[in-house]
Amino acid sequence: MITPKMQQLVAGGSVIRAMFEEGRLMAAKYGAENVYDFSLGNPNTPPPASVREAIIDILNEEPELMVHGYMSNVGYEDVRASLAQSINQKQGTDLTARNIVMTVGAAGALNVVMKTILEPGDEVLLQAPFFGEYLNYISNFDGKAVIIPPEFTTFSINFEKLEEAISPKTKAMILNTPNNPTGAIYSEADITRLCEMLKSKEQEYGHAIYLISDEPYREIVFGGEEVPYLPKYYDNVFVGYSYSKTLSLPGERIGYIVAPNTLEDIDGTIAALSVANRILGFVNAPSLMQRVVARLDGQTADMSVYHENKEVLYEALTSYGYEMVEPKGAFYMFPKTFLPDDKAFCAAAKEEHILIVPGSTFACPGYFRLAFCVSRETVKNALPGFKRLAEQYK
Amino acid sequence: MITPKMQQLVAGGSVIRAMFEEGRLMAAKYGAENVYDFSLGNPNTPPPASVREAIIDILNEEPELMVHGYMSNVGYEDVRASLAQSINQKQGTDLTARNIVMTVGAAGALNVVMKTILEPGDEVLLQAPFFGEYLNYISNFDGKAVIIPPEFTTFSINFEKLEEAISPKTKAMILNTPNNPTGAIYSEADITRLCEMLKSKEQEYGHAIYLISDEPYREIVFGGEEVPYLPKYYDNVFVGYSYSKTLSLPGERIGYIVAPNTLEDIDGTIAALSVANRILGFVNAPSLMQRVVARLDGQTADMSVYHENKEVLYEALTSYGYEMVEPKGAFYMFPKTFLPDDKAFCAAAKEEHILIVPGSTFACPGYFRLAFCVSRETVKNALPGFKRLAEQYK
Repeated sequence: MITPKMQQLVAGGSVIRAMFEEGRLMAAKYGAENVYDFSLGNPNTPPPASVREAIIDILNEEPELMVHGYMSNVGYEDVRASLAQSINQKQGTDLTARNIVMTVGAAGALNVVMKTILEPGDEVLLQAPFFGEYLNYISNFDGKAVIIPPEFTTFSINFEKLEEAISPKTKAMILNTPNNPTGAIYSEADITRLCEMLKSKEQEYGHAIYLISDEPYREIVFGGEEVPYLPKYYDNVFVGYSYSKTLSLPGERIGYIVAPNTLEDIDGTIAALSVANRILGFVNAPSLMQRVVARLDGQTADMSVYHENKEVLYEALTSYGYEMVEPKGAFYMFPKTFLPDDKAFCAAAKEEHILIVPGSTFACPGYFRLAFCVSRETVKNALPGFKRLAEQYK
Repeated sequence: MITPKMQQLVAGGSVIRAMFEEGRLMAAKYGAENVYDFSLGNPNTPPPASVREAIIDILNEEPELMVHGYMSNVGYEDVRASLAQSINQKQGTDLTARNIVMTVGAAGALNVVMKTILEPGDEVLLQAPFFGEYLNYISNFDGKAVIIPPEFTTFSINFEKLEEAISPKTKAMILNTPNNPTGAIYSEADITRLCEMLKSKEQEYGHAIYLISDEPYREIVFGGEEVPYLPKYYDNVFVGYSYSKTLSLPGERIGYIVAPNTLEDIDGTIAALSVANRILGFVNAPSLMQRVVARLDGQTADMSVYHENKEVLYEALTSYGYEMVEPKGAFYMFPKTFLPDDKAFCAAAKEEHILIVPGSTFACPGYFRLAFCVSRETVKNALPGFKRLAEQYK
């Protein structure tokens, strides 16, 4: 008596999550050191020591009824004010507390935004390859995902196909930069071109087309790349942010939405985000963690390991013959599989105790995603397996 | 461009949440000690000291990558095993870790269950008066709420009207005991009668009718009342639990679903609950708090203040002429208003700086809800205002 839709979802499963579970079982069987799990974006870098210190300071300094109690559904006013100020300093924006809605991670943020704007049948553009969960977040509200085929040379935006995909039913586009699964960062030129195209379509169709920027990887950037901040380029924009990756707190489910004053019907929109956060069952973002991130905003875990892992893997894998676009940020790379069937290739990798995710999960078959948010040892010890795979299937 | 449904919800607002916001403004204006806010179920009793200790112990003893990291979408295996065991000890059930899904509070639990079982048009029975958010949780999944009129003598189940309300489209009934807003506890006789009726309807219609027991107030009981545990009386049952009230952690959003082995298609159901938790954007219940409640299960905040508040308020208000059913649990009472228009009466109470919620919010006009999870001083200082209201409007 579970719904047919849920039966389908259960049968389809999340390939990534299934691998995570399988990785746990394999680790128990073969020993954790003999399984090379590149399947999930679960940071291996510990949170900065300041997370622990902040928790203890809050418990010592702040009234416990406030720390663990209800607050407005949008979050603590002082936390939101402090995050707004911090974004303003970095980005030159003019946000205030009202523009910030604290959420249960970026996944919560995206669902709250979808609930606010999506009517049944509304179309949401997704540039492939993309994080497969977006399909569920859109489907939760009976929206329709419209997939733009990949632009294979840089994994940026495929403008030709985008123009074909936009329709009067387009309500939104989700952008994810730095990108999961490719590690691409959309350039300022591409962002400008995208925003101009969407603005002209807004005028043509006479209604808002929202850009929803999913930015959990904003601070994970190699070699000083700039990640353009969407609110500076576009009016009808939401930013979803998460501390999961930058503070290595993915289990804590803490993030926020930025809803800038340039949004159409800003008062109604902020009120609706608050209602959506409440009625979807989030109620509010976890309270202690709200207070923690306010104290730590701007800090990150030590991310040098991701940079090093990227360097080692990129050099080794390309030397073995793997073809890929070099990642500029996030902690993913997205090489071609040697077999046309990416699922078969990932199954072959499992024989080497290497867990990687088929590109088809990201609407881009013929590739695989490798999440390198792992220890240096995992990277080093996995290289012979990657080499054997190349030799066997190249 | 926010959806018409959200526009309506924003315009309608949550009366309770609006009062909470207004209470904050009034406290700033008149001084917190001069505002008597009985509007929200926000515990005034601090969490037990063991919460603070557990957090610090966990930070000192457990690996931080595990404490703050991803785990299975259903929650940590050891946490779920420990909670299952604790429930078994109390209730004589035979739950294991697989029967527990950790959730973002009871609100998250209910939404995850609804997502799992509700198809558009499915009917969900609600015994009035009930927590108004249930309407949104049902509507989130295009279900239809079917309201059973109150049984006014004890605020238990109105069996006559229930029988009229059940239809072949009935998919579920939400039960809430101890009850918000009345403080009623459904007796074992009533539970038995209810379960027999639903079982016979399951057979008549040839499909499951789920009982969803929302139990955030299970441990708040006056005078040793027993709260029957639904899985002992019914097969197709889900229990939603929250630590918000019993550990005074409402901001932390931590709770769980019990899905017993008696459920139809138990394997599929548990898998679906896990998927629903993930795709609705919860992903998993906040990780540190999962570990905290596992260490503290069975402990509660000091709830004697609720009992005392109930005694003082019940005695004083009935002596002023207020009519009500004496609450047996939770921290609410639900007296009749002296004006037929309950909203007008609550507006009059605001003139006395008393914030109470109209019964119409709970599908029961002509009454008001008073949340007495407040300090003894608030209770004491509010009494003259309640007296003046009675004298003026009786």
